[in-house]
Amino acid sequence: MANVRLGVIGLGVQGGAYSGFLTEGKVKNMVLGAICDNDPAKKQLAEEKYPDVPFYDNYIEMLESGEVDAIVTCVPHYLHPEMGIEAIKRNIHALVEKPAGVYTKQVKELNDFAAAKPEVKFGIMFNQRTNPLYQKVKEIIDNGEIGTIRRTNWMITTWWRSQGYYDQSEWRATWGGEGGGVLVNQAPHQIDLLQWICGMPKKVYSHVKFGYQRDIVVEDEVTAVLDYGNGATGVFITCTHDVIGTDRFEILGDKGKIVVYGSKKVSIKRLVKPENEMSLTMDIRDVMRSVMGGNPSEIYSEEVIEFNSVWGAQHISVMENFAAAILEDTPLLAPGSDGINGVALANAIHLSSWLGKEVELPFDEELFLTELNKRIAEENKYPVKQ
Amino acid sequence: MANVRLGVIGLGVQGGAYSGFLTEGKVKNMVLGAICDNDPAKKQLAEEKYPDVPFYDNYIEMLESGEVDAIVTCVPHYLHPEMGIEAIKRNIHALVEKPAGVYTKQVKELNDFAAAKPEVKFGIMFNQRTNPLYQKVKEIIDNGEIGTIRRTNWMITTWWRSQGYYDQSEWRATWGGEGGGVLVNQAPHQIDLLQWICGMPKKVYSHVKFGYQRDIVVEDEVTAVLDYGNGATGVFITCTHDVIGTDRFEILGDKGKIVVYGSKKVSIKRLVKPENEMSLTMDIRDVMRSVMGGNPSEIYSEEVIEFNSVWGAQHISVMENFAAAILEDTPLLAPGSDGINGVALANAIHLSSWLGKEVELPFDEELFLTELNKRIAEENKYPVKQ
Repeated sequence: MANVRLGVIGLGVQGGAYSGFLTEGKVKNMVLGAICDNDPAKKQLAEEKYPDVPFYDNYIEMLESGEVDAIVTCVPHYLHPEMGIEAIKRNIHALVEKPAGVYTKQVKELNDFAAAKPEVKFGIMFNQRTNPLYQKVKEIIDNGEIGTIRRTNWMITTWWRSQGYYDQSEWRATWGGEGGGVLVNQAPHQIDLLQWICGMPKKVYSHVKFGYQRDIVVEDEVTAVLDYGNGATGVFITCTHDVIGTDRFEILGDKGKIVVYGSKKVSIKRLVKPENEMSLTMDIRDVMRSVMGGNPSEIYSEEVIEFNSVWGAQHISVMENFAAAILEDTPLLAPGSDGINGVALANAIHLSSWLGKEVELPFDEELFLTELNKRIAEENKYPVKQ
Repeated sequence: MANVRLGVIGLGVQGGAYSGFLTEGKVKNMVLGAICDNDPAKKQLAEEKYPDVPFYDNYIEMLESGEVDAIVTCVPHYLHPEMGIEAIKRNIHALVEKPAGVYTKQVKELNDFAAAKPEVKFGIMFNQRTNPLYQKVKEIIDNGEIGTIRRTNWMITTWWRSQGYYDQSEWRATWGGEGGGVLVNQAPHQIDLLQWICGMPKKVYSHVKFGYQRDIVVEDEVTAVLDYGNGATGVFITCTHDVIGTDRFEILGDKGKIVVYGSKKVSIKRLVKPENEMSLTMDIRDVMRSVMGGNPSEIYSEEVIEFNSVWGAQHISVMENFAAAILEDTPLLAPGSDGINGVALANAIHLSSWLGKEVELPFDEELFLTELNKRIAEENKYPVKQ
């Protein structure tokens, strides 16, 4: 195979962008093999923009057409697992959009299916994992440079969305069509990065606001307290109603602190010795003299790095890595099976707010689905899920 | 009365500082009337440093000596209500240190007693209320300049304390002697400011770590989620084991956002129109074009103010205001009766972590005391409280 022929399922914003990258030759070793969408208006759009690219209104037909070696699923989240399975079943490599699905039960089915066919590549579009800033942060944590994590704190309220955004599609911001709000649509990137860098919590307590500042039934604001089970605590905050959004991610370790500002600038402070040693050998006056006397180097050294991030480049990196995995067996930056962690964390946050109490991970998946289906039934727009 | 003669009860760090301010003539219309301490070593210290100032080892004797018009209680927190009551009973004006007490039941007794004798002044040492930065923030909120509050978020981890600090006194960081850790000793300033500026929450959920990074039985780390009952949510985080402490206070309103950095710099962003109007008239592309195009003035205007704060000046301001209240009936910056709010909030945070669930305010005061006494009994160093 010289080039991987990608089939794009869903010609919305993301699918349209990927189709553009591919036809403009921006993705090394990958071309646009076919497009699939069940909306007739999208068929017309595809014919105008990509007249030479085969179009399908049924994705199974596309999978069986011989026109594609791989697919990407730019469709409502609920459909990712099913489409992933149908593709892998036919030896078509599958790159699923985030989140991997809406509930862990369906994502597990996908993971189990994919695990049984390791020769077919299975990836997930966690484009932020290609962001050099977060790769650097993960490297520092993995190297133990700031020691054992004591606290994590991510406030990511830059996901502002207007009422018009929610009103644009019938399925958007519904329980049955989308499966949630900011937790399943906007924040999965940060939820994945948080667990990728800092690990999965053991318990979650959440305070979630449903339809707080938008006329929707799902959540537009989330506050979650994470208990990592080893003494460390985390706080995760996100919302879609802060037009002057904050993006600040702080990780405190026993040997230092990392603060990421606006996903662009990272400050790394490394203590000259572990904090518990300082606790035994110094007092508050020593610390104040150093810090207020303008000589913090007796306590820590600081490194500041600024990054420039180009939107689109990240997605192209994931696609190129996926092509390389198919053609040269290059390791995947974001293996598809990793998607379940973010889904589990988002589910735990939903479940805690529905039950009004802290929940342990792994949580009862059947209970989650029962609670989700209650909301789908109440909404009365889509059938309940299995 | 030309000058108010203040009796300082407790010649520790705070009592020593106040005695110094008074004898150095730094406090307008107030002089050092007497000193009281039950520690013989402090008697010797007082005789050396303030040979002309009467010394008492029993505060009731000092109250009845005719040497003082007012007192300040620089003693373990449990004793503040009792000393306040004994002073007011004898028509001696009482300035209590923060916190007003350890549990609301005892603070209510003080408040009720003081309310029945309004001619005797009753104040509390919330020195941070004299900080022009927080006065400015309160003024902006009270004027409605950033609209209705939607979120509050204060991470105040600059209260680093070494193990040596905790080991210095027998009563420190015990349930029976001090009544808690960072919630009753270091953070009461921010707990008061938070409720003074943003109001009291209706419900509190907390995740509190007891003896997490220090060899103590009380809390050295706190994460609390506040529910204001009107849709607004808050998060309050504090600890004593972060030697590179963070002090960041964010308030999101429907017309703007205030962020206070390090209690020194405040950024005030005012939206050009309320966020819910933007939600109905703009979309994400409009916002990104303005913000990323370097033209955020289409969305908001920003004002940044930097403040210089001098430690000590704040305490002197409270003392001068207290003298003016006594001599000229000037309104108190921090009426003593306000102290109960911070105690109630700290109690609710403790209680939520003890019960492992969210608690409503007002909470069951007897239940709080029962739970506190359980810990005092287990510690087995001090008698339980009534």
